[in-house]
Amino acid sequence: MDYIRDPAEIYKQSFATVMREANLSSLPNDMREVAVRLIHSCGMIDIVDDIAFSTGAVKAGTAALKNGAPIICDVEMVRHGIIKRHLMHDNELLCAIADEATRTLAGDMQNTRSAAAMDILKDHLGGAVVVIGNAPTALFRLLELIDDGAEQPALIIGMPVGFVGALESKEALIADNRGVPYIAVRGRRGGSAMASATLNALAGGLKGGL
Amino acid sequence: MDYIRDPAEIYKQSFATVMREANLSSLPNDMREVAVRLIHSCGMIDIVDDIAFSTGAVKAGTAALKNGAPIICDVEMVRHGIIKRHLMHDNELLCAIADEATRTLAGDMQNTRSAAAMDILKDHLGGAVVVIGNAPTALFRLLELIDDGAEQPALIIGMPVGFVGALESKEALIADNRGVPYIAVRGRRGGSAMASATLNALAGGLKGGL
Repeated sequence: MDYIRDPAEIYKQSFATVMREANLSSLPNDMREVAVRLIHSCGMIDIVDDIAFSTGAVKAGTAALKNGAPIICDVEMVRHGIIKRHLMHDNELLCAIADEATRTLAGDMQNTRSAAAMDILKDHLGGAVVVIGNAPTALFRLLELIDDGAEQPALIIGMPVGFVGALESKEALIADNRGVPYIAVRGRRGGSAMASATLNALAGGLKGGL
Repeated sequence: MDYIRDPAEIYKQSFATVMREANLSSLPNDMREVAVRLIHSCGMIDIVDDIAFSTGAVKAGTAALKNGAPIICDVEMVRHGIIKRHLMHDNELLCAIADEATRTLAGDMQNTRSAAAMDILKDHLGGAVVVIGNAPTALFRLLELIDDGAEQPALIIGMPVGFVGALESKEALIADNRGVPYIAVRGRRGGSAMASATLNALAGGLKGGL
């Protein structure tokens, strides 16, 4: 069959198509790589219209990663979407969703496992990059923990997806980010691919493949 | 903060919203659960317009899973999106993307690791459910292997995403499915969340959470 087989060529053509079709002019320079990777991850040019971010978010995220910050993922899909070879500074990948302690705590809290997983990793939040690609309750709970005095993350990538709480949790972050830099996708759209693509853009730019 | 914390209630309201907003009337009954889970996974009601499938695909997929069929995933994100507790029939989850042998073979084939991973798992294709949520080259390669005489899978879930080959590989499947039942999402959209959500619908319907 006739198709492009060379991974480097596939990436090159993909990013070229995105840059040709997308209007990135409203974004600061350092957000454009993030936007390209985000679009690339979902196949939707118009996702660029839903990107929201605080001033300096990219800088804060890249600095944290270079500083060896841990990366906290809400679900395993996010963890597995992150390109390990771009993590050059011993950044630890943390995800507590499948821990037995998380399940128990979720029952005690009467909240989801995704929310309880944030509590389980509470002591790692300070200076971390938190990547939320699935659960609105994880983002809501993260904001609660910060309000309750948890140490502030270096960056929140806030991209939960869906019909109950996704839009609302992201609007809560955007309306009051508690001084924490963030990159989010407004509305119902989001997901682990977009969230990990954002982290990948911060860690590796537009280099390399999956 | 004020948000819904009960996982069962979140699912209930999510699926109710999808069913209220989406027009599923053009779909056969057994495709509707698949459509609801697909929409739920991506937050986009209009994805329903892009669903393509062969007659009897849901029946073929559920029968295969009940028969203990292995599930072949193109990438780890797909594998980790599949709800394990819905796999009640010792279905093995196979993914060769990270195997050292795959990397070597990809170099030899001058194709992507995703494509080579299909070759590595070639002897498991017969009767399997193949779930492709990322790489167009994996779907192209799968079709080539079938053309070259590999045993036929029970079902192909064909949902690669992106700008180079995603649309084309899915149209190649839809135009000539080689007699293999399939469920696909046309166009550039797709992804590991949609692909694993489709498998989850076949394995567990609308029951349960993540």
